[in-house]
Amino acid sequence: MAVVTTTSSLAFQPVLEGIAEEIEQLTNRGRAADYIPALAACDPRRFGMAVAELDGAVYGVGDWQTPFSTQSITKVFTLALDLALEGDELWEHVGREPSGNPFNSLVQLEYENGIPRNPFINAGALVVTDRLHSRTGDAAGELLSFLRSESGNRDLDFDAEIADSEAAQGDRNAALAHFMASYGNIDNPVGLLLDQYFRQCSLIASCADLALATRFLARHGVRADGSRLLTRSQAKQVNAVMLTCGTYDAAGDFAYRVGLPGKSGVGGGVIAVVPGRCALCVWSPGLDDRGNSVAGVAALARFTTLTGLSVF
Amino acid sequence: MAVVTTTSSLAFQPVLEGIAEEIEQLTNRGRAADYIPALAACDPRRFGMAVAELDGAVYGVGDWQTPFSTQSITKVFTLALDLALEGDELWEHVGREPSGNPFNSLVQLEYENGIPRNPFINAGALVVTDRLHSRTGDAAGELLSFLRSESGNRDLDFDAEIADSEAAQGDRNAALAHFMASYGNIDNPVGLLLDQYFRQCSLIASCADLALATRFLARHGVRADGSRLLTRSQAKQVNAVMLTCGTYDAAGDFAYRVGLPGKSGVGGGVIAVVPGRCALCVWSPGLDDRGNSVAGVAALARFTTLTGLSVF
Amino acid sequence: MAVVTTTSSLAFQPVLEGIAEEIEQLTNRGRAADYIPALAACDPRRFGMAVAELDGAVYGVGDWQTPFSTQSITKVFTLALDLALEGDELWEHVGREPSGNPFNSLVQLEYENGIPRNPFINAGALVVTDRLHSRTGDAAGELLSFLRSESGNRDLDFDAEIADSEAAQGDRNAALAHFMASYGNIDNPVGLLLDQYFRQCSLIASCADLALATRFLARHGVRADGSRLLTRSQAKQVNAVMLTCGTYDAAGDFAYRVGLPGKSGVGGGVIAVVPGRCALCVWSPGLDDRGNSVAGVAALARFTTLTGLSVF
Amino acid sequence: MAVVTTTSSLAFQPVLEGIAEEIEQLTNRGRAADYIPALAACDPRRFGMAVAELDGAVYGVGDWQTPFSTQSITKVFTLALDLALEGDELWEHVGREPSGNPFNSLVQLEYENGIPRNPFINAGALVVTDRLHSRTGDAAGELLSFLRSESGNRDLDFDAEIADSEAAQGDRNAALAHFMASYGNIDNPVGLLLDQYFRQCSLIASCADLALATRFLARHGVRADGSRLLTRSQAKQVNAVMLTCGTYDAAGDFAYRVGLPGKSGVGGGVIAVVPGRCALCVWSPGLDDRGNSVAGVAALARFTTLTGLSVF
Repeated sequence: MAVVTTTSSLAFQPVLEGIAEEIEQLTNRGRAADYIPALAACDPRRFGMAVAELDGAVYGVGDWQTPFSTQSITKVFTLALDLALEGDELWEHVGREPSGNPFNSLVQLEYENGIPRNPFINAGALVVTDRLHSRTGDAAGELLSFLRSESGNRDLDFDAEIADSEAAQGDRNAALAHFMASYGNIDNPVGLLLDQYFRQCSLIASCADLALATRFLARHGVRADGSRLLTRSQAKQVNAVMLTCGTYDAAGDFAYRVGLPGKSGVGGGVIAVVPGRCALCVWSPGLDDRGNSVAGVAALARFTTLTGLSVF
Repeated sequence: MAVVTTTSSLAFQPVLEGIAEEIEQLTNRGRAADYIPALAACDPRRFGMAVAELDGAVYGVGDWQTPFSTQSITKVFTLALDLALEGDELWEHVGREPSGNPFNSLVQLEYENGIPRNPFINAGALVVTDRLHSRTGDAAGELLSFLRSESGNRDLDFDAEIADSEAAQGDRNAALAHFMASYGNIDNPVGLLLDQYFRQCSLIASCADLALATRFLARHGVRADGSRLLTRSQAKQVNAVMLTCGTYDAAGDFAYRVGLPGKSGVGGGVIAVVPGRCALCVWSPGLDDRGNSVAGVAALARFTTLTGLSVF
Repeated sequence: MAVVTTTSSLAFQPVLEGIAEEIEQLTNRGRAADYIPALAACDPRRFGMAVAELDGAVYGVGDWQTPFSTQSITKVFTLALDLALEGDELWEHVGREPSGNPFNSLVQLEYENGIPRNPFINAGALVVTDRLHSRTGDAAGELLSFLRSESGNRDLDFDAEIADSEAAQGDRNAALAHFMASYGNIDNPVGLLLDQYFRQCSLIASCADLALATRFLARHGVRADGSRLLTRSQAKQVNAVMLTCGTYDAAGDFAYRVGLPGKSGVGGGVIAVVPGRCALCVWSPGLDDRGNSVAGVAALARFTTLTGLSVF
Repeated sequence: MAVVTTTSSLAFQPVLEGIAEEIEQLTNRGRAADYIPALAACDPRRFGMAVAELDGAVYGVGDWQTPFSTQSITKVFTLALDLALEGDELWEHVGREPSGNPFNSLVQLEYENGIPRNPFINAGALVVTDRLHSRTGDAAGELLSFLRSESGNRDLDFDAEIADSEAAQGDRNAALAHFMASYGNIDNPVGLLLDQYFRQCSLIASCADLALATRFLARHGVRADGSRLLTRSQAKQVNAVMLTCGTYDAAGDFAYRVGLPGKSGVGGGVIAVVPGRCALCVWSPGLDDRGNSVAGVAALARFTTLTGLSVF
């Protein structure tokens, strides 16, 4: 992946380098997730950041080309793929409101009869995966194919060991899936669904890969090859759901500090979108107590402050 | 208030007129709030909309110059005034996360020890009013003075009859205030605080007034007279809180459909901000079951679709 | 099972016959549970009631010798069997407080870190079954053996069709089990546990069988053969848990109306204990909206009013 | 108050003395409530206990004649007085189910539309006081008059300083009252109601006084002078509500350990009823973390173990 210099009026490369220097000074870098070995082994001080412009030029700094565990970041792509196939019908099965609760909570699900609040909490992502799987016969395969195309990286793949670790720790997700099944909101057998879901969580990719793959949201729905995945209106909707629901129960804080649609994963990655302008991905494995990358969010906040590229 | 023609590349006036025609066709216009007589008396089919450009040019359609009961819309201005005075200290007393619950719920407040989720649910607005009052000695007076300056309308005022009606129906707000006081999160006597709060809710203004008064958020914190109320960063923060928390428990839906920072009131008004571009206000008293104006939200959604001026 | 006349100062037989006549007049008899075919097929107007004295004399009326689906009633016996084996250690894994929530709620379980409120909500019964199974290798077998001994009915058995129906509708219970497993509060594989649990729920027995099997609680822990299952103190404890938690979220109402330790099942059965005096079982399949037999609870309330045999 | 020796087959006096000796050994005696000065000043190691037989004979040990702050214990008498006046109509305004939540929680109240779970949580006691006040014009006066009659102690009185302290800390109760008023479940002005409520909480009485005053519940509703306050059925009902709801969110534990209808107060007192036999009161100011007297509950548990006088 070569860094391409463009005639952009904003010089992203020096901005990224300045941010990387500032991040170096962060004394508290949080703690890496430790519920599976592959994440626990990560050094919380690693840091990488990439920006992909609409035309595909990519700028990066630090560990921006190092593959990491994307975890929940893939929920954005699964959502987009399913929305492209079924449109608004999806919203009868999953909401689009912030949950105000942790990402794996069952409380709200019970009060709201098995309809998850949004596609980015685990329950919602299970519903989206279930529906995409019913429509395509291979939700994880669709996801992988899409990400390979958009990133131009044919080597992107799932990590079987991580998927197995997730499954071994999967009681909470099994509870969510069975619970929604009891309300009739899951079509596939729970075991099959969880297998699909854990595979998606196990995707390994770099900041460069993910910034490129996220570009279609900055391009209002248009893919790398110029074809359209989402209507302009649907792309706006995905961005809106990212902004209001993309960072667990810290979405308000993320909007306040960063001011961009974004989605985080417990592997320490965060993607973000500047509509009409560029897509970003940052990675640093140290998490705050709500599961978002400490250095990652700080870097994005600094980015919007330095460039003025917040949506607000 | 004269409509000023500008050299804007977008012709707002025909856009507004087109929207007004479409809105006319809306068969379900919701129901006006009926908990106080002044609101119950409103015709749910009334409709007005105004856009104020950064330089103060205002475009309008329908009942855009008709004064109405602003209700919770004033919470935005009270927040901005207090934030200007005390800065980040405010956030130790009120959160900035979506609540995921109705605007007057006590449940979350109990689980979170008397710290309201955000400044736009009633509990949060009570805290902001309490703090502004402690700093200024007259929270309602500060608000009125600010709104008169920004709108250029020296006749703006509170409506004593509405304030009295609110007070007569005020048990839920009294419960919220006493509850937070039991956690030490209210400084002033509850009776005094409620009086200040209900006065603010009783402000009467038109779409034109409010669009103009909201302009400082589109101008990144700069007031009509060129002085700065909020830092650029603070203005971004207020916009972010509006986007994630401004429309009760329908913030996700509003972001999804409209894609702008906005704040609604049960009088049927909604203000919205296009950062760097313009401020809007729409009014139609018929509400949906979450307390937002049916025609108002539809008009704003149509506006961003027609102009492409969503933040996403 | 012959009705034995005793020298009791209270003539139970005429009391039961009087109650049966009154119950006949009940116009609203509730609705039979309909989530599995075997229950949906029950006539809500059927009614039987039996009283077993300490010495084993049994009195009965109506369908008191008709086998029915005992469902949650067996939770009492499983609790007693496990308590006899492990004593107070059990209470570190399940509470003994009323839940204040429906029998299959996950909400409280989440707030309380996977420790169910009491042994009679589904989550609690799953924990007790799990623990009994770990200690005995065959929880369902232990239960069946105990009930056969106490009732003197060697033909008592599980109903495979009902167990299968429960399993087919078992997503909610699977969710509960996986959820507790995620907190480390389940030892056995969830599939195995559910199989054991559904078998217990499928037990078929008559009012006569169950009144006899419940006698050990009226005898302060002493079994039919004179051996002791529970200490006097443990028997008191089981009775206390029945009184405060035995009838789903209607325990207060049951205590208020009936005033006896009791346990209901959605098959329409209810057992009750008059400590030191007798055990009762009543059956009528029509349920109220909280899952308790309408005629059954009415009959027990009438019984304590007529005989003065409430604990209060 | 003389200790009268009776021909009772159980010698209560030596039982009490044995308990007092055992209690002396309790190393953890909890902490006195500290939210008002009068309670914070109490020595947590003080201990008194009294038993009143049906005929009025009273046995006591330790500080059994020392007046203390009765606090929530008076809720039992207010309930009985109102139930005597209005009967079952009361239950349309307050439930009789355990709450499963702390005594001053607002959560359940919100989910259940302003109808408190039972008369012994604060919200429920406010409703009962409100109703008794509407019927009599002086709820606190009725209570005092009743307690003086039943105890035979004409000097019983409220403590104005405690009532003032309660009022000064009264924001949570004010919140509860306003909240229920917002649902239409409070008749009197909130200020007046709180004054009545805090006065009742401020009653000062001794174990001897309260054991005597509680006798009417052991006598199935019959007062000291032989007149009937409650029907037999109503007395049973009050006992049932005490058993299931009398000790905050530890009712199950109290039933399990003590096995008697009981009601505690944060002053460290606990009353209990052995229906048909006697009434008890124990006092020791050290509380556990759920607000019940550590030594008091231990003493009652020991009492039922030694005498076999549990209801189970």
